[in-house]
Amino acid sequence: MSSAAAGPSALEDFWAVIPAGGAGTRLWPLSRRTSPKFLRDLTGSGRSLLQETHDRLAPLVEDRFLVVTGRPHRAAVGEQLAVLGEDAIIAEPSARDSMAAIGLAAAVLERRDPDAVMGSFAADHVIADPEAFRACVRTAVRVAREGWLVTLGIEPTFASSAFGYVNLGEELPGHPGVASVREFVEKPSTEVAAAYLATGRYRWNAGMFVVRPTVLLDLLATWHPELAAALRTIAAEPERLDELWPDLPKIALDHAVAEPAADAGRVVTVPSTFGWDDIGDFDSLATLLDALREESGSVTVLGDEALVRAVDSTGLVVPRSERVVAVVGLEDVVVVDTPDALLVTTRARAQDVKAVVTGLTADGRTDLT
Amino acid sequence: MSSAAAGPSALEDFWAVIPAGGAGTRLWPLSRRTSPKFLRDLTGSGRSLLQETHDRLAPLVEDRFLVVTGRPHRAAVGEQLAVLGEDAIIAEPSARDSMAAIGLAAAVLERRDPDAVMGSFAADHVIADPEAFRACVRTAVRVAREGWLVTLGIEPTFASSAFGYVNLGEELPGHPGVASVREFVEKPSTEVAAAYLATGRYRWNAGMFVVRPTVLLDLLATWHPELAAALRTIAAEPERLDELWPDLPKIALDHAVAEPAADAGRVVTVPSTFGWDDIGDFDSLATLLDALREESGSVTVLGDEALVRAVDSTGLVVPRSERVVAVVGLEDVVVVDTPDALLVTTRARAQDVKAVVTGLTADGRTDLT
Repeated sequence: MSSAAAGPSALEDFWAVIPAGGAGTRLWPLSRRTSPKFLRDLTGSGRSLLQETHDRLAPLVEDRFLVVTGRPHRAAVGEQLAVLGEDAIIAEPSARDSMAAIGLAAAVLERRDPDAVMGSFAADHVIADPEAFRACVRTAVRVAREGWLVTLGIEPTFASSAFGYVNLGEELPGHPGVASVREFVEKPSTEVAAAYLATGRYRWNAGMFVVRPTVLLDLLATWHPELAAALRTIAAEPERLDELWPDLPKIALDHAVAEPAADAGRVVTVPSTFGWDDIGDFDSLATLLDALREESGSVTVLGDEALVRAVDSTGLVVPRSERVVAVVGLEDVVVVDTPDALLVTTRARAQDVKAVVTGLTADGRTDLT
Repeated sequence: MSSAAAGPSALEDFWAVIPAGGAGTRLWPLSRRTSPKFLRDLTGSGRSLLQETHDRLAPLVEDRFLVVTGRPHRAAVGEQLAVLGEDAIIAEPSARDSMAAIGLAAAVLERRDPDAVMGSFAADHVIADPEAFRACVRTAVRVAREGWLVTLGIEPTFASSAFGYVNLGEELPGHPGVASVREFVEKPSTEVAAAYLATGRYRWNAGMFVVRPTVLLDLLATWHPELAAALRTIAAEPERLDELWPDLPKIALDHAVAEPAADAGRVVTVPSTFGWDDIGDFDSLATLLDALREESGSVTVLGDEALVRAVDSTGLVVPRSERVVAVVGLEDVVVVDTPDALLVTTRARAQDVKAVVTGLTADGRTDLT
């Protein structure tokens, strides 16, 4: 095992689970219900976030993928990941939050491969250094085989109030650098986040879990026995999916399992520094693009730079219609130009884009959301 | 005459000359070379600025109009003012500035109507109170019949550095309220403008002149005899237009005639308070629209308000494609959305829009200018 863990080869019995959901409302009008952010190329790489997630994991799992997505996106996911077989995609009848989605994948894998270790990685995150990411995952898999629920704990680069945190405990014996998790904490205020950073004992919770499927489901059964049983039933009798799914509770994996399991001393974390972002809004997208391109100070363009005429301006311009976009004398502006909708805001107000989508929805303009 | 001057009827022998030129570069992308601002509806009235200029003058002149425009715009002017005959439009072979344009109209009128008084009013200005405007013009015509070069001196509403000023002298005997003009002054600094306003003896020079054609040409002949002669030759022998026009000097009427005539004591002004703007940029357009609609404090929309979704924003939005325009958290923003080009700037930086047009021109993108 040690040579495999250190080298570039795939990890035996390791499966990548990719929950592909979320509307990305704060990335409107780039992200839409019918074309959410995981299906979009948000970095200018030529690959969607989903495809990049696949590409980043393929060296570890070869073709051992399970993508869990909503039925409306099943076809698009299948097209973008045509390299995978039909049974690599699980289509949820409706959105029941992350526990049901990831738990169903676990139940399926538990039957498919008794020695499986699964890693769950959202389809819409960006990672700057995939090699470093894979090294962390290799460590996490090694630890997970011993029965731990393992998270990747991202080293914070600033006192973010947009992410949850994990509080590190003692080092796990036999696994240098790997730490037990004292507790998960919800999104703190910026002040509290700054205090966390000062201790050096907090990491961002990126929602990345590595665990044996049976361990995950058994933990779930401790606190939510009916949910665990229902997921195992669906895995055993797939024809009952539509019957059982609508009654599953909407609950996040963090709340259902990770937090109580941490209290029970069953969670450990692999501290990680591979450059991570969940691109929650255009502000974080701008930060990310500047970091990827190692530039800033003028307007950052996601798209065809020839379409953008910037005079004395900074910020982010996304030209996605074929029109010329001229920006004059604006600091940290955000301009997102699509064929049927235009957004103009600032990086500081990027979170409030949600209000536009809410307003459009209330007015019945779901053609635009 | 006195009853005609006081009443609503037309003024005998009074002709409206409308120089229709200027690219309106600082109103890009709304205004283009091929569709300059005078051909556009910039107030949401349903009429272009040229048409509004016509409508405002028609009660005074009936059909006695002369529009002087560039050849590229002749057809569009004819369409917009189809009510006028063919000989109401003079098409310049090329732009030779305002003295040639207005001087040619004077030379044509001098031959057409020996008793003519002409008033020259740019095609791209906005006037808030047309009734008050016409009252001032009636006064100006009465004075002009006596041989004066008469300007309308607009009461300044703020210390503008974007306009020239006229310095008022003594009251003209027999014409209460009408004042001699001591001098014309070029666009001052804001500080100097504030000092002007404090004296109460300065008015904005809106470039509106009322004068007998022969008086204008004879004044011109005093300082530019060859230009005056050439214009009179073209009026007498229209077939020589293309031959003589290219050699005419490019000079503004202010410099060619108004300034030296003021020094010679030949200019008077009718102080006026009818609400005037030349809509030089989007900042002044926003001010104007707020004044016309007696509202401000949120986003002002020039176009279909249903297309604009504003969250916590102020400024001007011009939705001229059919797309939804969302503006979030921006103060005094300017968004002009046209089918092939989008402008985002602020009211404070509205003058710098010119730089975009300069850049596009330099890059050969004249399809967009």
